[in-house]
Amino acid sequence: MSEDGVEAERTREQGAGPTALDVARAARVSRIMVSRAFNPEASVRADKRQHILDVAAGLGYHPDMAARAMVTRRSNLVAVVVSTLANPWEAQEIDALTAVLQEDGLAVLVFRMEHKSRFQFNFAHIRAYRPAAVIAYMDDLKPQQLRRAFGNSPAIYPVYGIHPPHEHDEHMVDRLHVEQHEGIANAVRLLAGTGRKRLLYVRGEGAASDIDRMMALEEALAEYRIDFEGAIEGNFDYATTRAAVNNYWRRERQPDAIFAANDTSAFGAIDALRFDLGVSVPQQCAVIGFDNIREAAWQAYNLTTIGVDLQERVQALRRIVAARAADSQARSMVETIRARLVVRGTA
Amino acid sequence: MSEDGVEAERTREQGAGPTALDVARAARVSRIMVSRAFNPEASVRADKRQHILDVAAGLGYHPDMAARAMVTRRSNLVAVVVSTLANPWEAQEIDALTAVLQEDGLAVLVFRMEHKSRFQFNFAHIRAYRPAAVIAYMDDLKPQQLRRAFGNSPAIYPVYGIHPPHEHDEHMVDRLHVEQHEGIANAVRLLAGTGRKRLLYVRGEGAASDIDRMMALEEALAEYRIDFEGAIEGNFDYATTRAAVNNYWRRERQPDAIFAANDTSAFGAIDALRFDLGVSVPQQCAVIGFDNIREAAWQAYNLTTIGVDLQERVQALRRIVAARAADSQARSMVETIRARLVVRGTA
Repeated sequence: MSEDGVEAERTREQGAGPTALDVARAARVSRIMVSRAFNPEASVRADKRQHILDVAAGLGYHPDMAARAMVTRRSNLVAVVVSTLANPWEAQEIDALTAVLQEDGLAVLVFRMEHKSRFQFNFAHIRAYRPAAVIAYMDDLKPQQLRRAFGNSPAIYPVYGIHPPHEHDEHMVDRLHVEQHEGIANAVRLLAGTGRKRLLYVRGEGAASDIDRMMALEEALAEYRIDFEGAIEGNFDYATTRAAVNNYWRRERQPDAIFAANDTSAFGAIDALRFDLGVSVPQQCAVIGFDNIREAAWQAYNLTTIGVDLQERVQALRRIVAARAADSQARSMVETIRARLVVRGTA
Repeated sequence: MSEDGVEAERTREQGAGPTALDVARAARVSRIMVSRAFNPEASVRADKRQHILDVAAGLGYHPDMAARAMVTRRSNLVAVVVSTLANPWEAQEIDALTAVLQEDGLAVLVFRMEHKSRFQFNFAHIRAYRPAAVIAYMDDLKPQQLRRAFGNSPAIYPVYGIHPPHEHDEHMVDRLHVEQHEGIANAVRLLAGTGRKRLLYVRGEGAASDIDRMMALEEALAEYRIDFEGAIEGNFDYATTRAAVNNYWRRERQPDAIFAANDTSAFGAIDALRFDLGVSVPQQCAVIGFDNIREAAWQAYNLTTIGVDLQERVQALRRIVAARAADSQARSMVETIRARLVVRGTA
């Protein structure tokens, strides 16, 4: 919150309730100090801050983000765009992200986008809040679409993508790049080391991360001489995967390893094998997931998986948001983090 | 979005970029129609809406929520206050809530409050956004605190609480009341019917819902002549519960039924019994959870639990938010919904 924000507010509030100046007088501090007390980024002694907030609460004063956003032409809002918050990966990520952004004085606006037909409508809604950043967790939303949707606003766009940065879209959007090839190669090496010969991939079609993941997988399988039996559609989802594994098993040659595009679909595969098909995991079929969500450590699954440290992820996003706020004209930024194999009981 | 909001925007935007009027002229519609096209609540033919949004995007026009909030003194933001988003219950609830509120043209601001020492600071931050409603999912935040924190703002406060409405705080806050006694009584009747004699409760101390849940449980246990062996602390958490059940089992007389304050702690109890203690579920010990989160249907747990239908919950909250928006002076509102027993494999 800038000093000009406070200035705007003072003007607005004349005759319309207590002002920052009223708080300053009552608390016997400067008006700048009142502004600092309400700014999470400003360092203020804890007891002094508490005193000012108490006095402000007593007077019924509060700063007004709407007034500030009008003056600064930028809000303190970060728009987070998801297709669902209900999956563990999204929930755990956005929880941790909200925590670090709050420390920087930013608040998280959640937008749920489900139907492509509504994208334009949703974009208009999001733009109306003048977000300081837009973080898109939607694999089927392309950087170009984001760029077109938010190109005229001061928003920034770290995309949680897995593609390496390409020359031709260097100026497109800021992105978080997850380097997953090494983690996947290590997982395949582990499978080869335990004598696995035939692997089935449970994919989430339409997602950019899925294509990159499958390419990395095919490469590693060739290197370690494991047959790639093909892919079935799991939609990153427990029930879809469970049904698909059941179907596949009854029709096709049976693999001795399954690699799933995320942990939730790995759980569906494990339950299909153990409870529906009577196949023991990992003895008869190994299962490896992706993400390392908390539930992967639950003993009933105890899933071997590939994951990126959650704090590493959200701190990288936080750096992009801060860097973009400091220089809106800078060339697009890329932070790269590495996915690692986490060995548990299913492979 | 009201017409006066558009009016304010027009005034503000003179000489500062395209206006709603410019869009109206280019799209050959009225200015009111432009406003309606951007208002999710207004019924507008889909192709007409799309045309207007396309024209607006072409001109680089977007409505400005900050300007609107200044004029109307109320934002279209609903602040959702949680201690964490990372747990399945919160994630699934807020996902569904965000979807229905978006249909009403509202956007969800998520605030994560963890440390009591920061409550005042967080309240000030939330107030600054002039939320149209504050929905508190924090069991350790009392209605009185909410009232004090947001009493001077036009915010409203549906609290997701389980307490029945009390006479003396009728004017305190709007609330969603979950009637859970019948569901708990049915669960205990099921346990009695399968000959269970001694029950252990896994609680989440400090939560209002926990106290009500334990009272309902004790009542039902007395009625069905099952011994209440006491309570252990599970903190609504997998790992805490798993360790606590392990500890309890090695020290105390062993119960033949466990009732956990939420599903996630029930999973911790099941894994402690099966994998750490070699106790079969449900043969040697039944386990019942609370919430009926999606994961309760995963076959590895297949949990018998007590739950409130998710759509019922969020539609009730949506009604409170709408009713409060229509009449900010109305007496506090209470919506009551019922928790029901869902029988699966653990009891």
